[in-house]
Amino acid sequence: MTLADRWLLPDGMKEMLPPRARLVETMRRRLLDLYHSWGYDLVMPPLAEHLESLLTGVGRDLELKTFKLTDQVSGHTLGVRADITPQVARIDAHRLRTEGPSRLCYCGSVLHTRPGNKLASRNPLQLGAELYGHAGVDSDVEVISLMLETLDFVGVKGPISLDLGHVGVFSQLMKDAALSASQQDDFLDMLQRKALPEISAFVERLSLAPALSERLLALPRLSGGIEVLEKARALFAGSASVIVALDYLEHVAKRIAVRYPQTDLYFDLGELRGYHYHTGIVFAAYTPHFGQALAKGGRYDEIGRDFGRARPATGFSADLKTLLETAEALPELEQGVVLAPSGEDASLLDAVSKLRQQGVRIVQALEGEVVPGCCDRQLVLKDKQWVIEAR
Amino acid sequence: MTLADRWLLPDGMKEMLPPRARLVETMRRRLLDLYHSWGYDLVMPPLAEHLESLLTGVGRDLELKTFKLTDQVSGHTLGVRADITPQVARIDAHRLRTEGPSRLCYCGSVLHTRPGNKLASRNPLQLGAELYGHAGVDSDVEVISLMLETLDFVGVKGPISLDLGHVGVFSQLMKDAALSASQQDDFLDMLQRKALPEISAFVERLSLAPALSERLLALPRLSGGIEVLEKARALFAGSASVIVALDYLEHVAKRIAVRYPQTDLYFDLGELRGYHYHTGIVFAAYTPHFGQALAKGGRYDEIGRDFGRARPATGFSADLKTLLETAEALPELEQGVVLAPSGEDASLLDAVSKLRQQGVRIVQALEGEVVPGCCDRQLVLKDKQWVIEAR
Repeated sequence: MTLADRWLLPDGMKEMLPPRARLVETMRRRLLDLYHSWGYDLVMPPLAEHLESLLTGVGRDLELKTFKLTDQVSGHTLGVRADITPQVARIDAHRLRTEGPSRLCYCGSVLHTRPGNKLASRNPLQLGAELYGHAGVDSDVEVISLMLETLDFVGVKGPISLDLGHVGVFSQLMKDAALSASQQDDFLDMLQRKALPEISAFVERLSLAPALSERLLALPRLSGGIEVLEKARALFAGSASVIVALDYLEHVAKRIAVRYPQTDLYFDLGELRGYHYHTGIVFAAYTPHFGQALAKGGRYDEIGRDFGRARPATGFSADLKTLLETAEALPELEQGVVLAPSGEDASLLDAVSKLRQQGVRIVQALEGEVVPGCCDRQLVLKDKQWVIEAR
Repeated sequence: MTLADRWLLPDGMKEMLPPRARLVETMRRRLLDLYHSWGYDLVMPPLAEHLESLLTGVGRDLELKTFKLTDQVSGHTLGVRADITPQVARIDAHRLRTEGPSRLCYCGSVLHTRPGNKLASRNPLQLGAELYGHAGVDSDVEVISLMLETLDFVGVKGPISLDLGHVGVFSQLMKDAALSASQQDDFLDMLQRKALPEISAFVERLSLAPALSERLLALPRLSGGIEVLEKARALFAGSASVIVALDYLEHVAKRIAVRYPQTDLYFDLGELRGYHYHTGIVFAAYTPHFGQALAKGGRYDEIGRDFGRARPATGFSADLKTLLETAEALPELEQGVVLAPSGEDASLLDAVSKLRQQGVRIVQALEGEVVPGCCDRQLVLKDKQWVIEAR
């Protein structure tokens, strides 16, 4: 790297400069205050911890995304967190050990070895909320509501659509078809890409019972409005666990539709983001103005087990920087700067200090400094009083 | 690592749980707002960047503290930041390119391969402020003032003492004695440890002119009150650059003494924290209740040169978590939680939403949940109105 290039950031690493950084900070505060008002307690897990703690129960996707470090102190392998959710699950399972439901929220930087897609940042500012200790529609509705409130707070350009899925449909199908782990991975990959010809060929090679083949072939097409649930009920008639999953989805959807009538609901039973991680409903919010999910989450009841305490869990997360990029109208932050003269005059320093305490932004000029162009007003002495006037 | 140990954090990595995390967040906001009111603009540099950018001009100490990563995207070596100051210097030199002085502040997590001392955290929450583009007493006084205001804001248990030093004394002495780089490192090491017998033997072996030997031998003892400056003036008579440095120190000290009369001033001309980094005055704040510096900083005029734009620079930084550990009285944060009944009743949801907007913290009960013990009040329906009452 030549001297002239030292200021370059690695591809996909983004930094926030003035005035944008202040906007991020302002929104961070508002959202954490929102979560606080819903009863979510803030946690601040560390940037790095033992790799095994970070990757417990979360699947290979996250492992590939995680930077590894060697701890000189212990010789153990550490990871730089690529996702905060497993850290929060560890905290719920081991550090807090609340008996009833616990509500936790966070906002912090994570690091990814590779961007999730070409446009994605490798250092998102992840924020989210997690609800532990309750299995059922109520907690999923609460978490989805808080996710939608988040988008509303940020002022994301609408209309917002909410995608709902349930990994129970896919996992029951895998069980029924008795696919091996590697076959499941292959099918999952085709499904994510909605690669219909590949799926046809794959299903044909399996030589399953016709009803089962039909279900596998139909899965990538089970997306759309609420009618998808009826189609799925017909297709999966007799598969009790799938019917339970479909009923659950409908129940959640109906309650969200009442609370957020302006949100478009969309069902996608072939959508399996984080299949190795989630155990029930999965959800993601989109806007037509942005090609990726703005926020996403789901139920992941099993994660605490590897920390020695399985608890029901549901939550969502988002990249705050991405949310702000999709916001329609951003809050106006600049209130202007007042220029105070340089010097140590006690009455001047006193006036500056009092005004700053009142929230006035004051820069004191430095000796020899060419008068800065930044300030729209100035502090001047008039009749022995320091007063602010226009420049 | 056994399953039962997965929840353990690596040695020296600390995390913040409720309610402490909220306290850290509250103080973070207050301090960033303080810096904002002084005209400092917030920046948010990335967690990781090219190793060469992070280590430019900062010396070997920081290199040893920095975790290295291989970037899969480019093949370059990246570092996880161990200090945010060089990142802010890069931003000033290359991203902002302001002509006049620029004032920047930040608050973010850093990672250290090894703790600075046995008690130190390996993941401090570093916060600080930097002032670029002005060389002179005014900017150093401003930055030291802001550092002292920071300790005052946090409520650090006093009395606060401010240590002042100047690397110009040591560096002129090294030049006069014509020591090699490795001799300088050896001497610096002995000086930091105040290892007087080793220093005597070392100086004897050098066989320098008597006046020069005397200066080297005196350096570790040049600490104490303002009288140290007089002693040094006598000892370094005729060494113009040292006299300039001593005058500078005295000038800064006098102004700080007027502004902060309750702060104890202490001079230490053998104190050379960050010698390879700093170029002028260095300062650190202490309290008798804590064995390490609470906050420290200094002038580092050369750092921007390696980014292609040398600008005068001065600044300070601190670990916010350490500051809070030394605070006398922490703000009372808990305003209690209101329990709302579960359900989808429109008037209930509306009342909950309005109260939350007013800042009331409300948890809505979840179906089947054993009544949580967390809440001190509850929301009940009385005469068709939802009202808060004691539980």
